[in-house]
Amino acid sequence: MAHRFLNRLKLMTALALTTFLAGCQPPPADSGAGSSVQSSETFQWKLVTSWPKNFPGLGMAPERFAERVNKMSGGRLTVTVYGAGDLVPAFEVFDAVSQGTAEMGHSASYYWKGKTPASQIFTSIPFGMNAQQMNGWLNYGGGMSLWREVYAPFGILPLAGGNTGVQMGGWFNKEINSLEDLKGLKMRLPGLGGEVLARLGGVPVTLPGRELFTALQTGAIDATEWVGPYNDLAFGLHKAAKYYYYPGWHEPGTVLEFMVNQAAFNSLPADLQAIVEIAAQSVNQDMLDEYTSRNIAALDALVNEHGIELRRWPDEVLVELRKAAQLVMAEEAAKDPTMKKVLDHYQAFQQGVGAYHRISEDAYNQIAHQE
Amino acid sequence: MAHRFLNRLKLMTALALTTFLAGCQPPPADSGAGSSVQSSETFQWKLVTSWPKNFPGLGMAPERFAERVNKMSGGRLTVTVYGAGDLVPAFEVFDAVSQGTAEMGHSASYYWKGKTPASQIFTSIPFGMNAQQMNGWLNYGGGMSLWREVYAPFGILPLAGGNTGVQMGGWFNKEINSLEDLKGLKMRLPGLGGEVLARLGGVPVTLPGRELFTALQTGAIDATEWVGPYNDLAFGLHKAAKYYYYPGWHEPGTVLEFMVNQAAFNSLPADLQAIVEIAAQSVNQDMLDEYTSRNIAALDALVNEHGIELRRWPDEVLVELRKAAQLVMAEEAAKDPTMKKVLDHYQAFQQGVGAYHRISEDAYNQIAHQE
Repeated sequence: MAHRFLNRLKLMTALALTTFLAGCQPPPADSGAGSSVQSSETFQWKLVTSWPKNFPGLGMAPERFAERVNKMSGGRLTVTVYGAGDLVPAFEVFDAVSQGTAEMGHSASYYWKGKTPASQIFTSIPFGMNAQQMNGWLNYGGGMSLWREVYAPFGILPLAGGNTGVQMGGWFNKEINSLEDLKGLKMRLPGLGGEVLARLGGVPVTLPGRELFTALQTGAIDATEWVGPYNDLAFGLHKAAKYYYYPGWHEPGTVLEFMVNQAAFNSLPADLQAIVEIAAQSVNQDMLDEYTSRNIAALDALVNEHGIELRRWPDEVLVELRKAAQLVMAEEAAKDPTMKKVLDHYQAFQQGVGAYHRISEDAYNQIAHQE
Repeated sequence: MAHRFLNRLKLMTALALTTFLAGCQPPPADSGAGSSVQSSETFQWKLVTSWPKNFPGLGMAPERFAERVNKMSGGRLTVTVYGAGDLVPAFEVFDAVSQGTAEMGHSASYYWKGKTPASQIFTSIPFGMNAQQMNGWLNYGGGMSLWREVYAPFGILPLAGGNTGVQMGGWFNKEINSLEDLKGLKMRLPGLGGEVLARLGGVPVTLPGRELFTALQTGAIDATEWVGPYNDLAFGLHKAAKYYYYPGWHEPGTVLEFMVNQAAFNSLPADLQAIVEIAAQSVNQDMLDEYTSRNIAALDALVNEHGIELRRWPDEVLVELRKAAQLVMAEEAAKDPTMKKVLDHYQAFQQGVGAYHRISEDAYNQIAHQE
């Protein structure tokens, strides 16, 4: 990086990159200790979530969001967080925000594929983009505009609300040494990941989280995915499975979401609107930072205290899963024009950022993380 | 389900994509619906930087920070940004904030190694952590507490203020095919990276940015590093060099910084303190997102329009550079107890997160970014 810069660069940049925030200066402040232009009107919002209250990782995002908004607004906008089932069930969060039962929600957009299939792309798709790439696409690549377009018919404004990073492949009681071992494999793997597994002869199972442990322990299922070391250790899955496979090709950078009822958002004064958006952005980074840090000790405990065996998916399995994922995504896109539009945009960005990351992030990490 | 919202949608879609610009609306009149606890006192802050005003990437962070603070505070805290040399020279930003000449600064902490050598670790060190890892360390691994400790004697509160991602290795007019080719290589490479190069027989040169192009073109230097495709293309370095080497082992995830005069920060009410901290955090993510996105088209233009030849450092060169970096860092730590304390902490985190990322991010990216 530079120590000093060319003056000519000043000329090139005066107009650049101001699309997000330029042009709308706030009212000038009075000089000295004058009075502000803020409204003293107060707002009390409800935020419903798809997680148990204070669920580690995922569930901390709405808590931190509420705390930051309450603090930054000096109490003018207070947000109260409700765990899944407290006000509405986990999978009614979208409807609750759409109908204005709650002003906000925190969830994952792929739960709403029944409303609009394209929603799945904004969370994570099999063999899709990682966290850094998703953030680049959403915030500077046009992804967020598409997300807003997809949610607009429901009166919902979406905001990115956290990222898990690359998830783990899952917990297995059966070794996966070849494609043959996927045949008949009963694995809890919902959504698009499950579709991909089915193409290779697997049997994807949908089960609520609370039934996973027993299902795995009794052999009702052979395997399950969950999140990553930090959440998985807390969940105790290592007590019911032998092998911990990596990497999580089915969700390589899961984006969580805040949903804001558009009418409620519009009713806020401009400063509180900005506070809602910026608080969400700060929480979006926060979750990835927390997972990055907490997964270290959790992985160490799983391997060195609990004796879990780490296994990488065999190459031939990864190659075939990837091919199957491309087919599944193409078929899904063919069914729904909005899904096709969003997927085309996503894939163009993924191809470009992949080319760039091969010579930057990947090329560096391959040498830096050698043992 | 969509139909019931269609009418409302028509009224709202015009607003749906303008959320960041919503500050154009006049503040609503006081409804008297309730009173807040906010102080009406206003504050006018100066923010001095080490970059030309609106410098692409790096220089947009202070601009966006100011916009967001001004907006979120409803004009109670207005921040005015000064380019390098406008109020104080680029390398007097630290002193200006420490002495209270300006309430804030935006720069890179490794510029202040003369004040305290440990400052270098909070920007980026050769073969150090990437952006995702640095954010994890700073925000949930204890790194930020150490940074505050290191800056406290100067009356400065540091905040992370952006990240470039893995930088490029640099622009070369000489091929690097073996260790022999580093001997006598005149490369503009300041700081710790330059120290590492010197161990392998290279000749690190310190040159101001404005002299780089000519020095490279006339052969006064054989090579130079800069940032990455987006900044490098704007700088025109492809017109003066043949080869573009990767990856940038010398700065694998450069963290920019906001500095806040501690007394000025303490004088703010709690809501404005939170606004300053959260705005910085949002901008910290924003810069990486912008580079991630804009580097794609810039790299494409460099390779496909300007015919630049991409070259990966040879393995043996990377291996020896890495060994030399370990020696340089150990020697620096031996000279300064604070540097040693911070480096030990950093390296413990790097080792842990490296083990975790090998089986998550790296393992995934190796398959996902294949051509």
